[in-house]
Amino acid sequence: MMFKERMNADEAKELFLRAFPPLSDTKLLPIEDCDGRIIAEDIIANIDVPHYRRAAMDGFAVRASDTLGAGSNSPVVLKLRQAVGKGMCLRVHTGSPVPDGADAVVMLEDTVLHGGDVEIFAQLPPFKNVGEIGEDIQKGEIILKKGQKLRPCDIAVLASLGVGNIRVFRKPLVAIIPTGEELVPRGTREPEEGEVYETNGLMTALYIRKWGGNTRLTDIVTDDPEKIKDAIMSALDADMIIISGGTSVGKRDYVPAVVGSLGNLLVHGVGISPGKPAALGIINGKPVICMPGYPVAGIVALYFFARAALRKLGHIPDEQDRKVRAVLSEKIVSRIGYKTFARVKLEKGRAIPLATSGAGILSSVSKADGFVIIPPNVEGYDKGEEVEVVLIE
Amino acid sequence: MMFKERMNADEAKELFLRAFPPLSDTKLLPIEDCDGRIIAEDIIANIDVPHYRRAAMDGFAVRASDTLGAGSNSPVVLKLRQAVGKGMCLRVHTGSPVPDGADAVVMLEDTVLHGGDVEIFAQLPPFKNVGEIGEDIQKGEIILKKGQKLRPCDIAVLASLGVGNIRVFRKPLVAIIPTGEELVPRGTREPEEGEVYETNGLMTALYIRKWGGNTRLTDIVTDDPEKIKDAIMSALDADMIIISGGTSVGKRDYVPAVVGSLGNLLVHGVGISPGKPAALGIINGKPVICMPGYPVAGIVALYFFARAALRKLGHIPDEQDRKVRAVLSEKIVSRIGYKTFARVKLEKGRAIPLATSGAGILSSVSKADGFVIIPPNVEGYDKGEEVEVVLIE
Repeated sequence: MMFKERMNADEAKELFLRAFPPLSDTKLLPIEDCDGRIIAEDIIANIDVPHYRRAAMDGFAVRASDTLGAGSNSPVVLKLRQAVGKGMCLRVHTGSPVPDGADAVVMLEDTVLHGGDVEIFAQLPPFKNVGEIGEDIQKGEIILKKGQKLRPCDIAVLASLGVGNIRVFRKPLVAIIPTGEELVPRGTREPEEGEVYETNGLMTALYIRKWGGNTRLTDIVTDDPEKIKDAIMSALDADMIIISGGTSVGKRDYVPAVVGSLGNLLVHGVGISPGKPAALGIINGKPVICMPGYPVAGIVALYFFARAALRKLGHIPDEQDRKVRAVLSEKIVSRIGYKTFARVKLEKGRAIPLATSGAGILSSVSKADGFVIIPPNVEGYDKGEEVEVVLIE
Repeated sequence: MMFKERMNADEAKELFLRAFPPLSDTKLLPIEDCDGRIIAEDIIANIDVPHYRRAAMDGFAVRASDTLGAGSNSPVVLKLRQAVGKGMCLRVHTGSPVPDGADAVVMLEDTVLHGGDVEIFAQLPPFKNVGEIGEDIQKGEIILKKGQKLRPCDIAVLASLGVGNIRVFRKPLVAIIPTGEELVPRGTREPEEGEVYETNGLMTALYIRKWGGNTRLTDIVTDDPEKIKDAIMSALDADMIIISGGTSVGKRDYVPAVVGSLGNLLVHGVGISPGKPAALGIINGKPVICMPGYPVAGIVALYFFARAALRKLGHIPDEQDRKVRAVLSEKIVSRIGYKTFARVKLEKGRAIPLATSGAGILSSVSKADGFVIIPPNVEGYDKGEEVEVVLIE
């Protein structure tokens, strides 16, 4: 078996993302369960907020015209009443209704109360300290748009409208199939020589959940094309399939060929480092990612392909990565033609490359704070250069 | 009632954070439930990973000395065997054990197999393509340190060591008490004039959970000092208390005084905008945040005080905020002496201030993508200035 022609990383991603549609199914959920969910409909305000004229300050509701000429040395005096007409005022708290007749609220600090008389020491323009009906949200206004990712503050706005349930897009279900006869399931027995614990499936499941998907981690499948085929067929109820391992060009690397036999293998071999053996395909309209078994290459494939595919499926908007700028403590060398994900550790504003470790060294990711991503047309970065570090979540 | 002297925002936060200790209790959890949790002990590797010498390539395990003089036009020929001695080689896959006797692996691409003979077209130095025992993780090495926030890649490292459960810090439990006689619980009845739905408690609960805490949202408490006192007393089993509303200096603003009567009111009145009425105290050694009822001031108090306090309680490391740089489309004015959180909307690299809206306008947060944070010694930023926007989660 051979790699198809190695494809430019960005082109491979684009080709893959164009090959499947987003999910269309939605779900009605109570708003308190919707933090981080993607809203599937525009939300139009069904009421005005506030639905009454409200005082923006503690003080007295007045007719602005009654305060004409008032000043810090020349109060006007109004009668304290239960309603407001000419010469009258009413005690209000922040948020209380401002009664008909009144059109301004004078702050408590600008008044002195003497029995039933209130001295007003400030002249007010009309509408001063009065929140008009609909000042926050107007009835009929679109307040949230389809496709927005909901934040707690957005959910609070929904609550202020009395909305109890909203329609959100269903979370994509991602089936994760770890393959490799060398893998031992966690919690069963100790690995013998030539064996290791399965870790990529678990890592993938945790990243997919963090990024907004649901997951089903299947049993480990050995390096047997028939068994790989069966595992993929059984996973086709999911919205996306991620198969870990068996993607290279060795004798036991059957996964891309099996994907090709069941559907369309779009890409095998990507200009990404580490991660060249990654393969991408479509089976029954569902995106399938063949993720290299080497854990560092695996995490790069997750960040670069799986996250993008999950976002497309789930209508999840692209989100700014957490990033910092840092100065390289050592040169990073990369290969022309490969988008390179160099692991770095951050220390006092310096980015220290963890360069000596190969793609098989899982602990090098755990030791890393982030990636410096080097475009394929650049040969690397020099010691002392300022670089952007994408923090590993 | 009066504000205590208005305190500088950063000083208020520091004073508050110094006044209570982090939680000490921990919990043993299965590693698959630990994404985002804070590890409460150093993790020392109990085994070497790999625990055997492994092939880093598909190919043949050989004695490096046997390949002396081999080249692309001058192969050396070795016998294919089940073990490796002088003149012999063994077929290996990536990850297979490299047997005693062999000290290098020649890549499949550099070989040609003829029946029981293997032609080797490359000269190898010792240890070439052999992953030594402990190459990834050495037994006895500290692989994760107490206080680290666990990421999926860290959990994968734990899995590779066969670790099933780890000790993490308990999530702080935050009791949230919404106060205000104008509040109507969601899902009960429509608000009348002078009433609004309760939204701050819900928003607070969602932010606290997002930031790593557990929450208990209590019933709404009316503006009555005795009832506020009772609600606080009943919440003292929690690790932190956040009381929303009643923090200003109006007739109905009893919360800070009640906190002072039950414990120590450290701060009332902060140089933060919006959010000046915020108050901070300690009751029974527990941090208590009095969060302004005005929702925009409330969210600023959450971001500035509650998140910091939660992090301290839960040993949660400070995390880089998601940020972008953008050019201001309009001037932002701020008041000297106030750390100002100006809401902005992002559009094509421009930050558009949502400045006209007051602290009572919840929808202005929902319309905003982030905050431009203006230090208290700066009077604002000019149109056209490049600013940093902290994205609202």
